[in-house]
Amino acid sequence: MTVSRTHRPTLKDVARAADVSVSTASRALAGSDRISRATRELVAQAAAEIGYRPNIQARALRMSRSTTIAVVVPSLVNHYFAAMVTAIQEHAATRGITTIVAATNESATEQTKALNALTDQRVAGIICVPHEDCAAQIRALAAGGTPVVLVDRTLPDPAPQTAGTAKDAASANTPAPQTTPTIPTVTSAPRPGMTAALELLADAGSLPVGYLSGPMSTSTGRERLEVFISAATKLGLDTSHVFHGGYEQELGRHGAEELIDQGVAALFAGDSMMTVGVIEACHRRDLEVGVDIAVIGFDNQPLFDLQPRPITVIDQDVRRMALTALQILTALVTGTPGDATTETHPTGTPAHVRVPTRLIARRSVPQIP
Amino acid sequence: MTVSRTHRPTLKDVARAADVSVSTASRALAGSDRISRATRELVAQAAAEIGYRPNIQARALRMSRSTTIAVVVPSLVNHYFAAMVTAIQEHAATRGITTIVAATNESATEQTKALNALTDQRVAGIICVPHEDCAAQIRALAAGGTPVVLVDRTLPDPAPQTAGTAKDAASANTPAPQTTPTIPTVTSAPRPGMTAALELLADAGSLPVGYLSGPMSTSTGRERLEVFISAATKLGLDTSHVFHGGYEQELGRHGAEELIDQGVAALFAGDSMMTVGVIEACHRRDLEVGVDIAVIGFDNQPLFDLQPRPITVIDQDVRRMALTALQILTALVTGTPGDATTETHPTGTPAHVRVPTRLIARRSVPQIP
Repeated sequence: MTVSRTHRPTLKDVARAADVSVSTASRALAGSDRISRATRELVAQAAAEIGYRPNIQARALRMSRSTTIAVVVPSLVNHYFAAMVTAIQEHAATRGITTIVAATNESATEQTKALNALTDQRVAGIICVPHEDCAAQIRALAAGGTPVVLVDRTLPDPAPQTAGTAKDAASANTPAPQTTPTIPTVTSAPRPGMTAALELLADAGSLPVGYLSGPMSTSTGRERLEVFISAATKLGLDTSHVFHGGYEQELGRHGAEELIDQGVAALFAGDSMMTVGVIEACHRRDLEVGVDIAVIGFDNQPLFDLQPRPITVIDQDVRRMALTALQILTALVTGTPGDATTETHPTGTPAHVRVPTRLIARRSVPQIP
Repeated sequence: MTVSRTHRPTLKDVARAADVSVSTASRALAGSDRISRATRELVAQAAAEIGYRPNIQARALRMSRSTTIAVVVPSLVNHYFAAMVTAIQEHAATRGITTIVAATNESATEQTKALNALTDQRVAGIICVPHEDCAAQIRALAAGGTPVVLVDRTLPDPAPQTAGTAKDAASANTPAPQTTPTIPTVTSAPRPGMTAALELLADAGSLPVGYLSGPMSTSTGRERLEVFISAATKLGLDTSHVFHGGYEQELGRHGAEELIDQGVAALFAGDSMMTVGVIEACHRRDLEVGVDIAVIGFDNQPLFDLQPRPITVIDQDVRRMALTALQILTALVTGTPGDATTETHPTGTPAHVRVPTRLIARRSVPQIP
């Protein structure tokens, strides 16, 4: 590896680019809540645009001092996230890394507090299922040198209004790069599993299909709804039976009852928790799953397989997602990126890894005799 | 509050009592792994016996600086522990306290590492489901001033051989108190729920009963087996069908199949994970739960209620356990013990709170017509 002789941007450059003091820039990059969210986002943007990278040596030192990483998830009673955390922790343990976890109850306030606490505790790196309202804080953390990998959900692109301000300030000093460096992200690709699921329902004649959508405030909720509509349209299926819900059993139950009242022949739940709610609704309505109604859910948890007619699910391969996120985080922490994929992050680590879903077909979809 | 004029034991006194240097005593009390386990246990014992208590002011300061507590559990895919962690985190959040979690996969090595990492990060206090092989480390942590509350499982009494050594050393300086201060503990009392379960099975004529016991290396495994045998004996039931397992689905499945082969009419699982395994075994053997065989499990998780014949369970009231543990920890951290129970810890907090279990009878036990 050769060392570049060109001027490497310093914290002072970041401060100048964002038109703030060096101490404000430092605090903003550390994610301090004494700095306003707008300023933190401005500084993060400026740091990204001038290509500021904190000292890797300091980072490696921190790694050797504390081999503790953190995983931030929205829920632990959701089996999918419990399985993700467990897989990360098991893989990390084999490398001598201790994992601590924060569950933030789908709340931006809780996620902000958890990220602040973890930063105070100087964990070596963070794997985070991001809340979109924490975007500025997460970008500031990453720009400030905390190794961060996003998993399950992505963040929307930075808001253009603050980007403009930062760009104007930055352009006075350094030419802005073409693209803003992104935070490495590992998500599942819903299309393969969801398309196969809709094909199965069409083949079985379990139509129309009612879809229980996750929240539009999450990338997973938006993308799965988009895939449902586009894949169903391609198959010539009716897409008018959609319940706009959230990742909670109670919303799944309520939505399933609404869709049953609309006369659907199949219930397709957009996540684990709503799948539990769909099973609950069928119990309440005395509908035998796989006989009176077809059910397709998300995630391969043991009790979905232990229903009288086991539940057909979209499997997200959570262990592979967990291992990939951990590998990227380890590479970021030690500054030794591993195998690169086609699209790469400026540090050499993959920018966005997508793990394909697959359909696990079981008896919850009535078979054509 | 009055300040005692008598000599308050200092770290120097602890070092003298344990016959080690002050720096060794300090490191041992902080749980450093540079100090041997034997020495850490010796120092913890000496500190406990001379009544050494670290500066409460320093502790309160730490609380104000970092309102982060940690919860250490053996597993997160076990719904019971996921629910416990979630309840603690939700209650803590309402008090402005951030909760971080470590799951240690039922491994003493993992628990030791997690406790070291959490101590390094200076969390304000720790709620821990203790691994018995970590007893010395946990006692040293508590004696060293880290507020610790045990939950779900207890620790066995300290080993008498090292206690003897510490006592000899301590007695040269201070009269040893009658009893060693215990670490506050919150556990569920299995007897009410388990006795009601056995009465239900006897009334329904679902006999003989096969019991799937948890591991003898846990207080819960030992106590539940003891309760099963004593309560069954009192009811005149056969106690010869016991499978000695562990808190894993696979062991529950294997044990249930063995007990089915022994011709039992009821399967009684000693925890959540084995309950899942029992349901799996019934599926494999094509036995309809609540018709061909009676099933009683542990813990009130949603999917147990969503079986075709919902599973009768012993409910541990995990939310109450979580809240109680958090209340005690908060009292320890701030030095303001709340409502005392009859038996109290020397600091004024309860020594051992037992939360009664109750039976939730559902259709997994065939009814007498």
